[in-house]
Amino acid sequence: MDTFAARGYNNASLQEIADRAGLTQAGVLHYFRTKAQLLTSVLDLRDAADIEQLGTERPRGLAFLRHLVDTASRNAEREGIVRLYAVLSAESVTEGHPAQEYFRDRYEGLRAMVVEALREACELGELPDDTAVTDTANAVIAVMDGLQVQWLLAPDRVDMAASTDRAITALLAGLGADVTDG
Amino acid sequence: MDTFAARGYNNASLQEIADRAGLTQAGVLHYFRTKAQLLTSVLDLRDAADIEQLGTERPRGLAFLRHLVDTASRNAEREGIVRLYAVLSAESVTEGHPAQEYFRDRYEGLRAMVVEALREACELGELPDDTAVTDTANAVIAVMDGLQVQWLLAPDRVDMAASTDRAITALLAGLGADVTDG
Repeated sequence: MDTFAARGYNNASLQEIADRAGLTQAGVLHYFRTKAQLLTSVLDLRDAADIEQLGTERPRGLAFLRHLVDTASRNAEREGIVRLYAVLSAESVTEGHPAQEYFRDRYEGLRAMVVEALREACELGELPDDTAVTDTANAVIAVMDGLQVQWLLAPDRVDMAASTDRAITALLAGLGADVTDG
Repeated sequence: MDTFAARGYNNASLQEIADRAGLTQAGVLHYFRTKAQLLTSVLDLRDAADIEQLGTERPRGLAFLRHLVDTASRNAEREGIVRLYAVLSAESVTEGHPAQEYFRDRYEGLRAMVVEALREACELGELPDDTAVTDTANAVIAVMDGLQVQWLLAPDRVDMAASTDRAITALLAGLGADVTDG
């Protein structure tokens, strides 16, 4: 994970990964066959941890959107994970990248989750029924992703939690939600 | 530009670039000395074109923010440029990347420009004086960047202009601006 985060996939050396794990290259390839498969295994492992952390019951409606601000706040304390996703998600749009399908599916899943939360908010009367849920969901996901790259380049200049909070609060307020706490 | 956009910097081959330009590798290196210098020259060239396109007089206050929605709309018609910036800005956070300084400066410049427009909006009475201009500026830049990666992976699922419009309109409305047109 550290090697892919620091170098991206294309520039990561299997020798460096083997050295860090105290294995030979052949030893690593015994478990993961190819560098591409090692990458997707790392990403799957990360996702499993995140899903576990989210718990079986995610908050419903707007509470889920507020929960994302906590995620941004927590991300500011785990630079390695943020770097891994920021580097690999963008690198995945290059030709023939082994994680392209992974990230396409991941965004589709994130979008579905945020869209569902926004629909719940409409049903709960927290948002108007005519909310453009897909465009809003994409904007929410985008602001979190975009802040990560800015923050990695200049951590002193970017407050991920504050900017995420501002964007999500504004998006919800713009939609007519009552966004005061509690 | 096409090669860096399709492969990222690390994976770009000087031979491919030379072939596309109808030169030998030595011929390319005669003009640009190193692959790193070729990359920064490509980015500088792009920026010059963008600044020219923006014109000498950028719109003041909120009009500038609305102008960014037009930019997102235009970006949906120039996939190569979007890919170049999306791939390279994220790749630039990897260790020892030759464009790291370039992107740090670029975000600093973008942030300063959006902060200035938000301050103008405060002075013009378009926004309240206590607007958190830096957090807001970072969120505006982030949403545009984040949408690009999502769009490159799934152009059918992401409307860059609509989501940017929603986010910027919401951010401004959340700040108390009158965001109706005209």
